[in-house]
Amino acid sequence: MMAHVDLNADMGESFGPWTMGDDAALLDVVTSANIACGFHAGDPDVMARTMRIAADKGVGIGAHPGFPDLQGFGRRKMTVPHDSLRNLVRYQFGAAQGMARALGTQVRHLKLHGALSNMAMVDAGMARACYEGALDVDPDIIIMVLCATAQEEVVRDLGCKWVGEIFADRAYNDDGTLVDRSLPGAVIHDPNLAGPRILNMVREGAIITESGKRLETSIDTICLHGDTPAAVEIARSVRHCLEAGGVELRMFER
Amino acid sequence: MMAHVDLNADMGESFGPWTMGDDAALLDVVTSANIACGFHAGDPDVMARTMRIAADKGVGIGAHPGFPDLQGFGRRKMTVPHDSLRNLVRYQFGAAQGMARALGTQVRHLKLHGALSNMAMVDAGMARACYEGALDVDPDIIIMVLCATAQEEVVRDLGCKWVGEIFADRAYNDDGTLVDRSLPGAVIHDPNLAGPRILNMVREGAIITESGKRLETSIDTICLHGDTPAAVEIARSVRHCLEAGGVELRMFER
Amino acid sequence: MMAHVDLNADMGESFGPWTMGDDAALLDVVTSANIACGFHAGDPDVMARTMRIAADKGVGIGAHPGFPDLQGFGRRKMTVPHDSLRNLVRYQFGAAQGMARALGTQVRHLKLHGALSNMAMVDAGMARACYEGALDVDPDIIIMVLCATAQEEVVRDLGCKWVGEIFADRAYNDDGTLVDRSLPGAVIHDPNLAGPRILNMVREGAIITESGKRLETSIDTICLHGDTPAAVEIARSVRHCLEAGGVELRMFER
Amino acid sequence: MMAHVDLNADMGESFGPWTMGDDAALLDVVTSANIACGFHAGDPDVMARTMRIAADKGVGIGAHPGFPDLQGFGRRKMTVPHDSLRNLVRYQFGAAQGMARALGTQVRHLKLHGALSNMAMVDAGMARACYEGALDVDPDIIIMVLCATAQEEVVRDLGCKWVGEIFADRAYNDDGTLVDRSLPGAVIHDPNLAGPRILNMVREGAIITESGKRLETSIDTICLHGDTPAAVEIARSVRHCLEAGGVELRMFER
Repeated sequence: MMAHVDLNADMGESFGPWTMGDDAALLDVVTSANIACGFHAGDPDVMARTMRIAADKGVGIGAHPGFPDLQGFGRRKMTVPHDSLRNLVRYQFGAAQGMARALGTQVRHLKLHGALSNMAMVDAGMARACYEGALDVDPDIIIMVLCATAQEEVVRDLGCKWVGEIFADRAYNDDGTLVDRSLPGAVIHDPNLAGPRILNMVREGAIITESGKRLETSIDTICLHGDTPAAVEIARSVRHCLEAGGVELRMFER
Repeated sequence: MMAHVDLNADMGESFGPWTMGDDAALLDVVTSANIACGFHAGDPDVMARTMRIAADKGVGIGAHPGFPDLQGFGRRKMTVPHDSLRNLVRYQFGAAQGMARALGTQVRHLKLHGALSNMAMVDAGMARACYEGALDVDPDIIIMVLCATAQEEVVRDLGCKWVGEIFADRAYNDDGTLVDRSLPGAVIHDPNLAGPRILNMVREGAIITESGKRLETSIDTICLHGDTPAAVEIARSVRHCLEAGGVELRMFER
Repeated sequence: MMAHVDLNADMGESFGPWTMGDDAALLDVVTSANIACGFHAGDPDVMARTMRIAADKGVGIGAHPGFPDLQGFGRRKMTVPHDSLRNLVRYQFGAAQGMARALGTQVRHLKLHGALSNMAMVDAGMARACYEGALDVDPDIIIMVLCATAQEEVVRDLGCKWVGEIFADRAYNDDGTLVDRSLPGAVIHDPNLAGPRILNMVREGAIITESGKRLETSIDTICLHGDTPAAVEIARSVRHCLEAGGVELRMFER
Repeated sequence: MMAHVDLNADMGESFGPWTMGDDAALLDVVTSANIACGFHAGDPDVMARTMRIAADKGVGIGAHPGFPDLQGFGRRKMTVPHDSLRNLVRYQFGAAQGMARALGTQVRHLKLHGALSNMAMVDAGMARACYEGALDVDPDIIIMVLCATAQEEVVRDLGCKWVGEIFADRAYNDDGTLVDRSLPGAVIHDPNLAGPRILNMVREGAIITESGKRLETSIDTICLHGDTPAAVEIARSVRHCLEAGGVELRMFER
């Protein structure tokens, strides 16, 4: 049986007159798109445009809710009560569903954005509030979680549909956390390195840490970035390497 | 066969720490609630609270989209391109649906708010963009329109489900428009006048204008206000009068 | 020489169509008003109205900057880089000065709001970034700090003009921190208690803790609340007690 | 005596993570910069960065207030009461002054943005409310108006300091209005055309309309655009042409 994996990236992060990323280019590389829902980026027009292209290219559509913080792009931590987190996810997910339905398509998955995701990586209570909010709206939604974090722990406990992701361009510590960005080698900038590294992990069915340790996990999808031309190049390189290595690139199952 | 009519009011117009109206009291009077969707008022927490009470009291839930203008409460006219209007309605309607589904209930109708509604009363293009946006999301949604305006004209043309409303507290000109607020008698402040007047119109199946002219129309629902204690009193008086006059108060059919 | 003290309260916390507090009533009680600057509450119209009344009643006007978080009323913690904090204070303070000048008056002091203040109570770096931002705009501005916190430490270190405040309705621990709200007696709700307690502290020139310990400090101003009718009653009671006790109520010097 | 003129362009139109225009490049071309104040674009960090560079390059700083409409970039018309307009300008102008003072510089002029400017071109009441708001804050501020519009009429009537501007890249009708964008030749895209055309007008001290008619007016400053690479090229060409033609480029006087 041939190995397969999904490639995902954040998209629809333009806002009003401001453009971010080259969504059209990236939509030729990925198989799933995490689309901003208007709180940290994206607006109804951007969402419609991005979903339209994604649907036309057969890319899976995900809701990508974040904190209500446009200036900070959802990257500033906020202390929000769990009940509000739940409602904040319900609202953004519902809005994304409405936009998708209007275009004759649907939202298949949900992934948290920025500081909301970072906080939910280590705070199971926050992850649970957010994911329960999503499941309240659609019990069949696929939750995309960061492997080996509190996010994964919570979806396992909830017993919902989920997929695990790893980063294409980040080095891992032996405990499954990411190597701190301030350390050398934490971020992989070289397209020639990123591809083979990910191919290896997908074949092994495990995160290979910086020290070479093997952390068995469910690698369903690879997180790519697309906010810079260099990032798009890495994304293409990862795709090429995986294809050349006989890994099928396809949307995860529902 | 007994006459029947629906009573509707705007609700969920609090925001963050700020309270507006006495939704709990008004939800004992109305049969349908138009719930703000976060652009001109309301936030995800307010929406959840308001929908919860409405569902518990058996009051029909409507999405009430408006312009993105919190400070102006959606009452300031904005020139928004039709494509953006369409997306703006899709987004807010989708968000409302998500919130409703999360609570185990659903959005039955949609009514435009404030300046968006006022502009769509006379601009069929705007009304069409908004209503098509709503129908894109749910072709079975019931559109609530102001009787004898461009709004009604558009839903008739679209062939969608719709209901017509009249105001409980406003006098009408012979051409079906509202008497200008600057003129005496334009707004009915006396609860003892409002009730009998509306009972008469519902029985007649017609708007009775200030001059006594009869404009036959489909009076499916009466628009009440609830933002002041006096408004709640008028709302109660209208309900009492209609019940005493043998008119059944019930949600319009889907 | 007669003892004297200033009474301050947060104001101008309405927004658009939403009203908060009874500013007109409270402006008869206080001698200084901390006016919201549009990020967590207040809008240019509310600011103009509130400053107009304050100026007419001879109440000192202060800028009251907060986090950019209307829904959370600036009460949700946010992780904002120091450079951004500095600019955020400069902007809001500048806006307040513009509004004040337009009305022929001026901003005399500055006090941080909500979570921004709470975080700056324990994080000297944050306090410094905010206060330096204010002093960049006006080196003569009077910074209002919470006595015996990192806020006080920072203004002492900066060598700027400042005044220290204590809360009229909160009990203090022996280390100068506030008794946790979850503990009995943490918040004083009884107007008959609040007044004499504050009179005593002002006479002593010290915070008297719950255990009776005396923490000498510079009590230049008393923080009153006005967001509920009960709060206004406590505010009046404190004023009455101080006046009856021979303490002169007057704006702190510039 | 050598002819001289000012060159102005809108700047600081980035927001949070989103970049717009190449301000650094444009600041080498213009002599005055109209800096967005946070309502339609710009945020406190962007304002600080842009003002810092402008001050370092000796470019005059202007406040550029707009409607509170980030998504629409202040280009969507809004119906705002005159009192609110006045406060909206006071607030944004004050904020800009605060940011400028913090950097040791000052705001020299004020120009309305987008739909606010467009509406004030034909609605003297709106122009007056805005300009009075600015003058309330600083009676010495220089108002930048579009020549031969209601804006000019109002500043003449107010008797305040003002300068008149013409567009570098727009054709004029014989009545001084702009040729509608939908007509051929309305917008000048060719850098080789724009420069000589403006040089001619500056020398003539008059707008030369499309038909060749001469409308005498006070051309104090030329409005350049910088939001596209082509626009920057036109800006450079205009500057070069004026310099080659012996026109001195310098900030207007205060």
